[in-house]
Amino acid sequence: MSIQLTVLGCHSATPRVNAFPTSQYLEINNRHFLIDCGEGTQSRMRKYKVGFSKINHIFISHLHGDHFFGLIGLISTFGILNREKDLHIYGPVGIKEVTVLQLKLSKSWTKFNIVFHELSSKESELIFEDDKVEVRTIPLDHRVYTNGFLFTEKPKPKKLNIDNINQYKEIETCDYHNLKAGKDYQLNSGEIIPNGELTIEPPTPKSFAFCSDTAYKPSIVPIIKNVDLLYHEATFLKDREDLCDKTKHSTAEQAAQIAADANAKKLIIGHYSSRYKDIMAFKEEANTVFNNVELAIAGNRYSTEKTPLNVLNID
Amino acid sequence: MSIQLTVLGCHSATPRVNAFPTSQYLEINNRHFLIDCGEGTQSRMRKYKVGFSKINHIFISHLHGDHFFGLIGLISTFGILNREKDLHIYGPVGIKEVTVLQLKLSKSWTKFNIVFHELSSKESELIFEDDKVEVRTIPLDHRVYTNGFLFTEKPKPKKLNIDNINQYKEIETCDYHNLKAGKDYQLNSGEIIPNGELTIEPPTPKSFAFCSDTAYKPSIVPIIKNVDLLYHEATFLKDREDLCDKTKHSTAEQAAQIAADANAKKLIIGHYSSRYKDIMAFKEEANTVFNNVELAIAGNRYSTEKTPLNVLNID
Repeated sequence: MSIQLTVLGCHSATPRVNAFPTSQYLEINNRHFLIDCGEGTQSRMRKYKVGFSKINHIFISHLHGDHFFGLIGLISTFGILNREKDLHIYGPVGIKEVTVLQLKLSKSWTKFNIVFHELSSKESELIFEDDKVEVRTIPLDHRVYTNGFLFTEKPKPKKLNIDNINQYKEIETCDYHNLKAGKDYQLNSGEIIPNGELTIEPPTPKSFAFCSDTAYKPSIVPIIKNVDLLYHEATFLKDREDLCDKTKHSTAEQAAQIAADANAKKLIIGHYSSRYKDIMAFKEEANTVFNNVELAIAGNRYSTEKTPLNVLNID
Repeated sequence: MSIQLTVLGCHSATPRVNAFPTSQYLEINNRHFLIDCGEGTQSRMRKYKVGFSKINHIFISHLHGDHFFGLIGLISTFGILNREKDLHIYGPVGIKEVTVLQLKLSKSWTKFNIVFHELSSKESELIFEDDKVEVRTIPLDHRVYTNGFLFTEKPKPKKLNIDNINQYKEIETCDYHNLKAGKDYQLNSGEIIPNGELTIEPPTPKSFAFCSDTAYKPSIVPIIKNVDLLYHEATFLKDREDLCDKTKHSTAEQAAQIAADANAKKLIIGHYSSRYKDIMAFKEEANTVFNNVELAIAGNRYSTEKTPLNVLNID
């Protein structure tokens, strides 16, 4: 089990020629999610070969333009491509009104259903669940109502250790269900074979937390504790912590502190302010607090398959 | 006097990696206008060095996404860049509601005034006028309420022919006003010097007509009669005229027929459907009806300064 995260855009504020606003494509346990959707996201998806038809769930952290102005264009394109499957959109209250108004004005009603899941809770809540993955909100602290999202794989069942099982002829196929459920096996002789001898532990479920945009908020640490991969915004360096206070953003050091306190295995930082020409300084600052840091770069695909975090540039 | 038109995007429907939705930047008589604003327009403006601060008037033909989804992002960026000047937006009724709603949801009210000029007339009307330029609507025939726009330079005053004037010592500076106004001059002897001998005709005012999107609509011809430069959409070739009927678009031949009937000096066609891989076929088809045809290509700057139409690629 591994997580693949493709960064489609990772800069703050306004799109520029080579700087794209926030959007990420997450592949986790055979589920495909789009997270945030700044202007131009659909073009980046095409560039990085993200299959439009795979996207059934879009998570929008907040309604600042650099995180959602690309949504209506993507929905319209889905319509032009004759999509039929339901599309689920999770985001702050208001996202339905603005989307519907634009579809109405352009007389471009989609044939597929758009299912809006409007969020307003200030507590972490379960907003998506199926047999493979669950998604919870991470309430953040920004100038408008904002959530991060925690994506967690569901545990897979234990696998049978057939070689070991075959050593006990009295264990039959009808017993397998109990073995997978973790039960020990009692032989006719009364001897008990521990479950661990007859099964193989499944891979540990992986998790990914997306935290953008937010001021430094230590109270999210319990929600994302032990996360495998954390994306945390780092808009400024600590030389401009005053701007973080004013705009409710984080420094690279603060992002790294969250990662350290949460015992995250790896950290990706992004959402760089345009005032910084050299983003390497973000990594250097974060590294003073936390070791396993990667910079978000558009066109990079991050995989938890290997250690350290495997980064493939597909640009 | 010349017109410079920079094509920022010229494809129909959805943005793709190398195909950008409609937007044009028009420089006419020292005025600077943005026409339509599909998703990603602000990035194209940056790429082609269109000064954001020069844009005070934006004309939106209709509320299909490929013509206006980039507007809210551009407005937001103007806000981030601390714009102070009023911004005038001309477009169909509804453009104010959707813009204001998005600014409200993102709590990103601009410090500058946005002056909305909402259009609903089905007749051509004067919507902008100053001492240099006037702009009239061109009612088009599309699936939603749509206008083209006719931009016309105001005539400049006659210039004085100082060499000739100096041959008549009795003509004084205080007479110049009358000469510029076209009056002949009567010498003390009673002899009349024709105005044409004492003045130089100013350059003929130029005009540009933008017509997208529309079915073939011959009734626009009188509005754009003798236009210097005509942009007319050509979404399909005539092999798919059936799609034009269905979607209310034009073929390249129909665009050329409008240019011919209007006695336009030059024609630019664009808004190509993605079904055509080779856009040269559009030019070939248009050329069967009209000679001076250029293809709209993103990053091309078209100038009426020279004949034939001068095209500079700035990509």
